[in-house]
Amino acid sequence: MHRVTSKPCVFCQIIGGELPASVVHEDDATIAFLDHRPLFHGHTLVVPKTHVEILSDLPAERVPAFFTLAQRLERAVEDGLGADGSMILINNVASQSVPHLHLHVIPRRRKDGLRFWLGPRHPYDAENRAEDFAARIRDALRAP
Amino acid sequence: MHRVTSKPCVFCQIIGGELPASVVHEDDATIAFLDHRPLFHGHTLVVPKTHVEILSDLPAERVPAFFTLAQRLERAVEDGLGADGSMILINNVASQSVPHLHLHVIPRRRKDGLRFWLGPRHPYDAENRAEDFAARIRDALRAP
Repeated sequence: MHRVTSKPCVFCQIIGGELPASVVHEDDATIAFLDHRPLFHGHTLVVPKTHVEILSDLPAERVPAFFTLAQRLERAVEDGLGADGSMILINNVASQSVPHLHLHVIPRRRKDGLRFWLGPRHPYDAENRAEDFAARIRDALRAP
Repeated sequence: MHRVTSKPCVFCQIIGGELPASVVHEDDATIAFLDHRPLFHGHTLVVPKTHVEILSDLPAERVPAFFTLAQRLERAVEDGLGADGSMILINNVASQSVPHLHLHVIPRRRKDGLRFWLGPRHPYDAENRAEDFAARIRDALRAP
């Protein structure tokens, strides 16, 4: 879904060949290229050529090929760059710099300084009970 | 793939009913439950019942259903909790606390303090040229 905006989508411009990018893969439905502000070198974005905004907007028939390619790129980034592992990430709306679905494949190394997962957590407590949150998610899953 | 370890896999124990969890979805192939150390309340993990370690280990025939469920859970977490957006994340090896594939669905709100994406970047330069990294990933993609 297009947001109402006067600015052209930069990923659509890359797909259309109007903006340059370091492309690592391209097929009829998908393009993958290096993030121009990499968290680590080799940080790759996987982008459907059809403009959709968030993960849940990706049409069902495109899901298998998109994520099979994500699997291949995970291995390629890990093996090609000799990384210890990787992080796969999709931001939906919040922290999403370009409102065109993109899956990040980020090479990770032990002690690479990305201590994100050691950041503050928000425990459940008497006022915020885990079961209440689970029930709200279950109800939303059941909604039509 | 099982790592050689004497400790039983805690996610396999949840799947087997030996450990409790706040379950939000379960079907023949997949279970989803709340992270017990949530980044934000409602932080959900989507876990294949078959023990595989990382995203690229997930058998091809399980990819469509796994990510179609991830799409549904994205909407359920966003709609059910009134979140502004969400973050979808898979850690492969690095920062992976449990070596059993799990996809995080994390509710996000504007100004929720998760400034991860504003953290330090590692720009490309003369010694680390984007095209060299792209070529290494392309070569690895082509490898058998």
